[in-house]
Amino acid sequence: MSILASSGLEAIINPHDAAPSREWVLGHLADPEVRGVCLTHSQPSDKVDDEFLKACNENLKVVSTFSVGYDHIDIEGAKRRGIKIGHTPGVLSDAVADITVMLVLMTLRRVEEGISLVKSGGWSKLPWAPFILCGPSISHPSLVLSFLGFGRISQHVLSRLLAFTSKIHPPQVQYVSSHARPNQMEIDQQFSDRFGVKVKRVERDQLASESDILIVLCDLNPSTKDYVNSEFLGKMKRTAVLVNAARGPIVNSDDLAHALSTGQIFGAGLDVITGEPDISSDHPLVKAQNCVIIPHMGSADVDTRKAMAELCVRNAIAGAKGDPMPAMVQ
Amino acid sequence: MSILASSGLEAIINPHDAAPSREWVLGHLADPEVRGVCLTHSQPSDKVDDEFLKACNENLKVVSTFSVGYDHIDIEGAKRRGIKIGHTPGVLSDAVADITVMLVLMTLRRVEEGISLVKSGGWSKLPWAPFILCGPSISHPSLVLSFLGFGRISQHVLSRLLAFTSKIHPPQVQYVSSHARPNQMEIDQQFSDRFGVKVKRVERDQLASESDILIVLCDLNPSTKDYVNSEFLGKMKRTAVLVNAARGPIVNSDDLAHALSTGQIFGAGLDVITGEPDISSDHPLVKAQNCVIIPHMGSADVDTRKAMAELCVRNAIAGAKGDPMPAMVQ
Repeated sequence: MSILASSGLEAIINPHDAAPSREWVLGHLADPEVRGVCLTHSQPSDKVDDEFLKACNENLKVVSTFSVGYDHIDIEGAKRRGIKIGHTPGVLSDAVADITVMLVLMTLRRVEEGISLVKSGGWSKLPWAPFILCGPSISHPSLVLSFLGFGRISQHVLSRLLAFTSKIHPPQVQYVSSHARPNQMEIDQQFSDRFGVKVKRVERDQLASESDILIVLCDLNPSTKDYVNSEFLGKMKRTAVLVNAARGPIVNSDDLAHALSTGQIFGAGLDVITGEPDISSDHPLVKAQNCVIIPHMGSADVDTRKAMAELCVRNAIAGAKGDPMPAMVQ
Repeated sequence: MSILASSGLEAIINPHDAAPSREWVLGHLADPEVRGVCLTHSQPSDKVDDEFLKACNENLKVVSTFSVGYDHIDIEGAKRRGIKIGHTPGVLSDAVADITVMLVLMTLRRVEEGISLVKSGGWSKLPWAPFILCGPSISHPSLVLSFLGFGRISQHVLSRLLAFTSKIHPPQVQYVSSHARPNQMEIDQQFSDRFGVKVKRVERDQLASESDILIVLCDLNPSTKDYVNSEFLGKMKRTAVLVNAARGPIVNSDDLAHALSTGQIFGAGLDVITGEPDISSDHPLVKAQNCVIIPHMGSADVDTRKAMAELCVRNAIAGAKGDPMPAMVQ
């Protein structure tokens, strides 16, 4: 608010302590004095589609989203209308990496089952035996650690996970990216040198079949939607775990529920899920004992959300004034 | 089993897929051919008290516990009867450190609340706002990271947590140990050099009042029972989190429940709790939204439990034969 106040621009703030209505949003977009808009990823009112773009008055120059992902925004449509898009990369990488590592540990170590057991009062009835509630070890000697997408956040996750994996038998790291670069071997060598373990780009089949821990941290776009489907899951190890901290629709929920219930994979940890936030208590993934779901909290720490708010507002102010934006979607 | 088989000793195995009865245990102890016993920390049948020791025939030379802690064993009583005690230090340090870091992240990031929200179907009704479900950041610049006990496992936890904390503003690390050593400054300098952050032993009051993250990883003994009580909790920061991965009774449950319900501290993560495993679903700590409880799963990964089983059996065989034991309680 203080940054907005000192910008010389006037701010129209949603007056309710809840999401604004779509009508409220569209109504203000039409006002010719409105030159920019800040919005979020999470609210249906904030979807930047054809209807949204048509409602924008011609002085509106910038849409600034309080998120790094922009799959809720029609980027091409906005470009055609000369509207710039701001987002919040970088500032949330640490917080999302923290949650991702937490979900890896929770999934490997069967924490969903453990918590449910305690909550139901069933702990006292559990017979103790050496392998009760045991999961795969993260320091297992031949661990293969895989990433769907190997951008900034994946790299932060890797540097954290290497504090847990075996020092004597370091894990192999592999990732899939949208396309191989001409100097791919050189790039992978740089990654390997930087992290002190072997890192390499692989193809989709190898990612599926060799991973012990598979972490989804890529953009949602037409090429990644349903990337993890029944055919992919069918190639995975029965001891493998999957963590999605990117966007729900990259993993097909029906196929994942089937793979979890049949033991095709060991477990899953989800910060995101297709259809969120409208997830009912009888959703098959909510009911699965080998799946832990948290409500899209990846960036939810106080310092991170402050930094995202600041970057979101600075993008909007710069865009509205026609100045260079700190973080613009190209 | 293969190690036992090749030892030349005969094994009497509890035939049920559940804890044996106390009678079954005591009955076999009296058998003059029984020279050693393997037992666990978790079963009432396995408590090595006066009754247990009196039941032991005079050829019984060793009690080997499948745990690192031995607060279920009357060590002095066993010594008086010439019985050696084996335990399993070292092999479970990584697994317990993994779970401890996971509990730190879960507690800071309000994951108990998040999971409950998803399970109840309440996610769709949650209004999105920048600080909804936000917790303190682990990379906060002035973080104070504290340990009650700074042995092997605490040190493993610290090396993992340093992959999450700020590189530019590293955390201050402090710990309490049972007594200051004559060369305490030198010891702390060695820790500081090894971890690359300032590490120092402090007194109880300072531990309470300055910690942002307080991790309990000490032995349970008369001097640590109820160490974290209402007076201690009353000195803690309202934004602080507490994680106990050692033994339940080090933290007073009633006092912790009060501190959590009044917001005296931010949250707690417990792998252990007084009275486990008889914890009912209406226990105040089970019901607290800012407390996550898992059923003593610290060492529960497959590789770790195998290593513990092997060490437990090797201790028993060596003790029974009068050979030096791989890991004997002094």
